[in-house]
Amino acid sequence: MIQYPNRKKRTVSAIPSSSYAKRGMNLEEDLNLTNDYYRSLNLANVHKKPIPVQIVKVDYPSRNKAKIVEAYYKTPSTTDYNGVYRGRAIDFEAKETRSNTAFSLKNIHPHQIEHMRSVSYHGGIVFLIVRFVNLDECYLLFLEDYDRFVKEHARQSIPYQWFRDYGHLIPYSLTPPVHYLKVLDNCCF
Amino acid sequence: MIQYPNRKKRTVSAIPSSSYAKRGMNLEEDLNLTNDYYRSLNLANVHKKPIPVQIVKVDYPSRNKAKIVEAYYKTPSTTDYNGVYRGRAIDFEAKETRSNTAFSLKNIHPHQIEHMRSVSYHGGIVFLIVRFVNLDECYLLFLEDYDRFVKEHARQSIPYQWFRDYGHLIPYSLTPPVHYLKVLDNCCF
Repeated sequence: MIQYPNRKKRTVSAIPSSSYAKRGMNLEEDLNLTNDYYRSLNLANVHKKPIPVQIVKVDYPSRNKAKIVEAYYKTPSTTDYNGVYRGRAIDFEAKETRSNTAFSLKNIHPHQIEHMRSVSYHGGIVFLIVRFVNLDECYLLFLEDYDRFVKEHARQSIPYQWFRDYGHLIPYSLTPPVHYLKVLDNCCF
Repeated sequence: MIQYPNRKKRTVSAIPSSSYAKRGMNLEEDLNLTNDYYRSLNLANVHKKPIPVQIVKVDYPSRNKAKIVEAYYKTPSTTDYNGVYRGRAIDFEAKETRSNTAFSLKNIHPHQIEHMRSVSYHGGIVFLIVRFVNLDECYLLFLEDYDRFVKEHARQSIPYQWFRDYGHLIPYSLTPPVHYLKVLDNCCF
C-alpha cells in the first residue's frame, strides 16, 4: 500500500495514547474543536450555548469596562448544543461518565429531556453524546432510543451494553475529535 | 367569574396604551413572552441564548452555592435567538432603534452577520427583527433582503422606508406580542 508522505500512519499504538482519558481534553473541549472544524469547512453550523447565569450586580471600574461582581449559575432549560446541518435543525446534550458499566439518567435534567422532545416534535434531529471516559468510547444515542429505553426499563441508568446495542459509536480522529456528523450522515439522510 | 384568591385580575384595559413605546416592555421581553407562548402551544421551539460571559472567579460561600464574583461580558459570536419551526432551523437577531428614519448597520456585529450567512447556507431561515420604538412598528427582514441592501447601497443605515418596502410588518397582538411566525407562514412555507 502506497503511503503518501503527509499521510499519518494509522498506528494507534504509536501515539502515546489516543485515550480520551489521557489526552487531557474533555468532551466539551473536543466538541468545541469539532464544531470549529465543521464551521471552518462549512460542513455545519453548530455552537455550544453560553452557560446561563443570573447577573445581579455589575460594576463599571472604567468608562468602557463592565465587571460582573455578583452572578449565579442558573439551571439550564435547554440542551447545550444546537445548530443546523444539511437543512435540519440539530440539538443535543453531551455528557461524560467515569462509569464503565452504565450512564445514570440523573445526568440529564428532566426539563432538558422535555426540551429535546419538543425540538424533535418540531422536526429537529435530537440526540445525546455520551463519553465513557475510561473505556475511551463516545456514543451517539438518538432521543427516540433514549425514550424507548426509559419506557421499557424501570432503571435509573442505561447499561453500557445498551449503548453498544442501540447507540452509535462515534469514530475518533484527530480532526475532528468527535465526528458525530458521520453518524448523522449514516442514519438521518 | 370566580376569582381564585391568588389570581391576579387580568385588567388589560387598565394598561394605558397598547403602544410598544408606552407599554414599558422592551423587545427582548416581548420576544420572551412570544417564544413562551409558542412553546406552550407547541407551535415552535425558539429560545433566547444566554448572554455570553467569561467567568473568572467563583466563590463558594456555602456547600451547595456557587457565587460568581468576577466575570466579564463577551462579544456574542452568534445571534441571540434560534430554534426550530415546522422542520426548519430558524435563527434571528432582534434590535430596537429609537430613530424614526433609519436603522444603523452598526447595530449588528460583523461576526453575527457571518454567522447568519452560515446558518442560511446550511438551510436555516434567517432574519432580523427590528423595532422602531417611537413608531411602534416591528419589522422582520430576511437575511437575503438585508444582504441585498448592503450590496446595492453604500450606506451605513437602512432607511425606514426600505423596511416598509422590503421588510414585513409583524402583526401586534397581546398574545403573542411579536407574532413573527405569521410572517414565516406567509413567506417560507
